[in-house]
Amino acid sequence: MGVKLGILGLGTVGAGTVKLLQDRTGRHPLLQEIEIYRVGVRSLNRPRAVELSAGVLTTDLEAIVSDPEVDIVVEVMGGLEPARSLILKAISNGKHIVTANKAAIARFGAEIFTAANQAGVYVMLEAAVGGGIPVIQPLKQSLSVNRIHAVTGIVNGTTNYILTRMQTEGSNFSDVLADAQRLGYAEADPTADVDGLDAGDKIAILASLAFGGRIHLEDVYCEGIRQVSKTDIAYAEKLGFVIKLLAVAKRQTSDNSQLSVRVHPTLVPQTHPLASINGVYNAILVEGEPIGQVMFFGPGAGAGPTASAVSSDILNLVATLKTSTAGLNPLLACGHHHYCQIAPIAELVTRFYARFLTKDQSGVIGKLGTCFGNYGVSLESVVQTGFQGELAEIVVVTHDVREGDFRQALAEIHTLEAIDSIPSLLRVL
Amino acid sequence: MGVKLGILGLGTVGAGTVKLLQDRTGRHPLLQEIEIYRVGVRSLNRPRAVELSAGVLTTDLEAIVSDPEVDIVVEVMGGLEPARSLILKAISNGKHIVTANKAAIARFGAEIFTAANQAGVYVMLEAAVGGGIPVIQPLKQSLSVNRIHAVTGIVNGTTNYILTRMQTEGSNFSDVLADAQRLGYAEADPTADVDGLDAGDKIAILASLAFGGRIHLEDVYCEGIRQVSKTDIAYAEKLGFVIKLLAVAKRQTSDNSQLSVRVHPTLVPQTHPLASINGVYNAILVEGEPIGQVMFFGPGAGAGPTASAVSSDILNLVATLKTSTAGLNPLLACGHHHYCQIAPIAELVTRFYARFLTKDQSGVIGKLGTCFGNYGVSLESVVQTGFQGELAEIVVVTHDVREGDFRQALAEIHTLEAIDSIPSLLRVL
Repeated sequence: MGVKLGILGLGTVGAGTVKLLQDRTGRHPLLQEIEIYRVGVRSLNRPRAVELSAGVLTTDLEAIVSDPEVDIVVEVMGGLEPARSLILKAISNGKHIVTANKAAIARFGAEIFTAANQAGVYVMLEAAVGGGIPVIQPLKQSLSVNRIHAVTGIVNGTTNYILTRMQTEGSNFSDVLADAQRLGYAEADPTADVDGLDAGDKIAILASLAFGGRIHLEDVYCEGIRQVSKTDIAYAEKLGFVIKLLAVAKRQTSDNSQLSVRVHPTLVPQTHPLASINGVYNAILVEGEPIGQVMFFGPGAGAGPTASAVSSDILNLVATLKTSTAGLNPLLACGHHHYCQIAPIAELVTRFYARFLTKDQSGVIGKLGTCFGNYGVSLESVVQTGFQGELAEIVVVTHDVREGDFRQALAEIHTLEAIDSIPSLLRVL
Repeated sequence: MGVKLGILGLGTVGAGTVKLLQDRTGRHPLLQEIEIYRVGVRSLNRPRAVELSAGVLTTDLEAIVSDPEVDIVVEVMGGLEPARSLILKAISNGKHIVTANKAAIARFGAEIFTAANQAGVYVMLEAAVGGGIPVIQPLKQSLSVNRIHAVTGIVNGTTNYILTRMQTEGSNFSDVLADAQRLGYAEADPTADVDGLDAGDKIAILASLAFGGRIHLEDVYCEGIRQVSKTDIAYAEKLGFVIKLLAVAKRQTSDNSQLSVRVHPTLVPQTHPLASINGVYNAILVEGEPIGQVMFFGPGAGAGPTASAVSSDILNLVATLKTSTAGLNPLLACGHHHYCQIAPIAELVTRFYARFLTKDQSGVIGKLGTCFGNYGVSLESVVQTGFQGELAEIVVVTHDVREGDFRQALAEIHTLEAIDSIPSLLRVL
């Protein structure tokens, strides 16, 4: 009758999920059919925020994924191993999977989904991207008839929090990061967030769903926000932009044979729907035909929102399993096996923002223009913005240009005697 | 093998849906299993934007809903009758339904879903609210474990377009309406839009899904935007608000026994996520526990977006029917039978904005304050904003107050000799 869960992990997300599943009043009545049968933890002796019946807690995670009584394995332990091995073992034992593990799915998705299709089980991952925001299920189901052109997201709350504070307070990256760490909005080791790697995992997952192919994670270009300065945020504002860490997956070529999948700080026009997404919030903009633009906005992390996503996946599985007998629902299962071809970043066509410090003024703008012209880089605006000590500061925004051509022009500009340095280089949406 | 569609209606949405279903390249491969078997129209001789094989077009709509070959009836004809009768007949013949008909569902939903449950068929209605924006399916599935506290939407593109233009241009309602009609953004008879009735239908549907009960449409309070003036838009802006036509469904009482379901122009704080939804766009904000706030944003109307929603419903049905044998998926079917209790508008507790024209100034603010005080209305701000001819203009914003008490205070204020008129009365979010 009931569906038995084996939950791996009882950290923030695990405890949030247990709490939600135990507190059923006023929620969907189908929750009554779910039994928290086993919860795997590292130590039985730690104090827990949730109460569980005797015998539910266990340190034997291998036993959970092999237990014939378990119907669904809920992997909320995070990390790469043993999460990957436990998921694969659970699948081989015929368990359906619900996971919040973006890192494991982005790296081992191909292996995991191939195994799941062979075993005839589902792997649900709403919580892996955008916390509580429904985006995986809408991409799989509600937008399934569209030809998707682009998915553009603010999918990392830590960096959006830092950039929002830099913007509103005029502060430096390092000061805000230190404060965010103190307040618990950033990890002690902030690498995965501030270097764009977490966002890279998430856009790889979204790209796979939106474009119906697998993604080699190593093809995803990731550039973080460490080099974003308050100076650039201020100039961007004057030019009508805010700077956001965007994760982008987009059809690159007109024949749709290549994708561009990348994470980088980006100048976003102030009127763009993503420009007003502030603080720890996340948003994912999906563009396609015939839908046009739709955007999903909400809390990108946190115990409650993530538990909402994990538990909704569980409930959807319970509802699906109750009524289906023959094979996997083709919209909920992973139907693709080929890999998407991802163009190298040098092939990207985009606008650029660049800031130059120059030794003297006379003729410098002309020299810059000549170098850019040599590589077919057309300029939208060139502004001499002021001085930093002895050096003049010049800000350039280009028209669309192939990134490789722009980099070649910059290399030549670097050799100009008048150029002191190029402190900033950012893409423009 | 294939799933056969009987489509009722070939207007904007019908033609958009046919076009999408015929143009499969680059879309989900499951679309190949769908056959456009019959399309019911009023006249065979009208020129059509889509090409259909001989024998597909018919004027005999009754025959479509009775045809044993038809698996899914797609009702995109709109209007109340014969849409209602055809849907019911299709259900009684065991057809699944996809409909974009908010008016019919808001009025006859109880009858239609009772019949559907008896017949063991699905009624899908993603296109009925928010055009192409996925909101029905997320409410049914991705947010299903949440206790929903409130659903607040900008769900009528015409009125949002008019209010946005009044805001940006400082124009009058009647001028912008006339221009919107000329441009095709408003109907020749704009009643359903500008009087809030269309939004009322939609919030009734959203409330039913969010709170798991049926809604008597006549309990939904609807107030339109005809009385919104450019003067109030300008004052609202000075006070930090924009005026939007909001459709709101909210738990009213702490014991959750009563809902408030209503449509009215509302002062929305400029920092609120709904404040920046402009033009013909729609957005629906869902608040619940543990999710917090999530918002869905996109095109609220148009052939393409609506066709996306209709076709995705069809594809979801095809995917579900392929793999299910035993009964209806409890998250996709309508599981409730009771009616939600909706509190009368007098019981609403909200902030108010009111604008008064007074004959002279001396002591008027004191008299207003006394009248308000008599009924327990506490004021957040009182500003004498200027003069209109001989009359002084006073704008008041209250703290939260029971609407009935506020109305009583206003009735007493009306009797004051110093009060000329109360040209504006708006609720504040």
